[in-house]
Amino acid sequence: MRYILRISYDGSNYSGYQRQKDKVTIQETLENVLKVVLRQDVSIVASGRTDAGVSAIEQVCHIDIDDMNVKNAKGYINNLLPHDIRVLSIEEADSEFHARYSAKRKTYEYLFYVSNVENPVYENVATKIGYNIDISSMKESCQYFIGEHNFSAFCASNTEVKDKTRIIYNMDITEISDGLYKLEITGNGFLYNMVRIIMGTLISVGMGKISSQDINKIIASKDRQKSGKTAPSKGLYLKKVVYK
Amino acid sequence: MRYILRISYDGSNYSGYQRQKDKVTIQETLENVLKVVLRQDVSIVASGRTDAGVSAIEQVCHIDIDDMNVKNAKGYINNLLPHDIRVLSIEEADSEFHARYSAKRKTYEYLFYVSNVENPVYENVATKIGYNIDISSMKESCQYFIGEHNFSAFCASNTEVKDKTRIIYNMDITEISDGLYKLEITGNGFLYNMVRIIMGTLISVGMGKISSQDINKIIASKDRQKSGKTAPSKGLYLKKVVYK
Repeated sequence: MRYILRISYDGSNYSGYQRQKDKVTIQETLENVLKVVLRQDVSIVASGRTDAGVSAIEQVCHIDIDDMNVKNAKGYINNLLPHDIRVLSIEEADSEFHARYSAKRKTYEYLFYVSNVENPVYENVATKIGYNIDISSMKESCQYFIGEHNFSAFCASNTEVKDKTRIIYNMDITEISDGLYKLEITGNGFLYNMVRIIMGTLISVGMGKISSQDINKIIASKDRQKSGKTAPSKGLYLKKVVYK
Repeated sequence: MRYILRISYDGSNYSGYQRQKDKVTIQETLENVLKVVLRQDVSIVASGRTDAGVSAIEQVCHIDIDDMNVKNAKGYINNLLPHDIRVLSIEEADSEFHARYSAKRKTYEYLFYVSNVENPVYENVATKIGYNIDISSMKESCQYFIGEHNFSAFCASNTEVKDKTRIIYNMDITEISDGLYKLEITGNGFLYNMVRIIMGTLISVGMGKISSQDINKIIASKDRQKSGKTAPSKGLYLKKVVYK
């Protein structure tokens, strides 16, 4: 029987989502608890991995387990999980449902704040950007990413993915508190480090190193050397995965 | 010479802003560091105290110190402060400026999220409210608080303040991420626990225990027993203090 698990995690203390030898990951921590509660080996398939330090407001996974009453399992699982991982819901899924391949859209948020000094409140949730930054040019740049593009210039070079064409449906920057900004980006999928490289490129635009009109050229170049640095993982949140 | 200090702190690990015997407070921690860096005893006067666990995105204080070059002091002070307190800026003030008495408006934010399970990302910054809550009635209730009122019903009973009339200029609830809400409230001043009791009353409205139309009656009653519980300090942020 296939079930959908919606989970949330603060990734600060983990080496990313995906199981790795000798590292503490979200997947391993969750699979270990599921094994105890469900009394069987469980392999979790997530909508995608998240990097070390990246958090998920809502990540979607599926598991295949022998038929059993999982209705009450959520409470037991959450009791055994560390406080920084929670199962939000468990629902029955169609057998064709696949957490990764059935995903149609994903939304990420990147929180950043502008200050010449660390702000302890914002520092808990966002990445600090230096003071002299032009937010309006960063905001203007967002439009150039929207649409279907080959995002090779915005993909970590050590990736094996062949097809680097992705669609960005929405992308915008809004101020959610004084000096605290949210980049929200929705696409049909994201390459390795893609959101962080887009964010790093926007920071270069804000600093005046790249003009917003150059974004089209950088995309067309398909050259990772032309785009900005990979922004820190802190501040990046997987917000939502949409199916069908 | 009088100086304005703008500071920010994550209040999670402190027994509130104001100095207390045998407790670790923001004021004491900051005064101790100022004494070392400025080589004189310094008394900080803040725009107002904040409760244990309450954070400040921006708190405003003044200090009177012997004339000296404080331009470079900020870096030294921040190096000695723990990471959860930061001095954002130090500026010269007019001698009539008073951090508390000159303050014209204050803005607080209260972050809360609606879920039947803890969400680790939101749990770091906000208070969780149970699932069956009517946000639209909470939002509707905000308008009844706006204006000049005697807020005795929204003040902790153990207070010595005589005049409990305050003006609320703005008050609204907005959704800042999926299921994460911000109550933002601006007034000419706030009584002890006032924002937390207003928030607790809004929660009672959301749960259907109080109707939004009852808010006027509760205000008129001046009776602390009629309003809701004091909401937790977690989620409450002093956002801004405005002068003249």
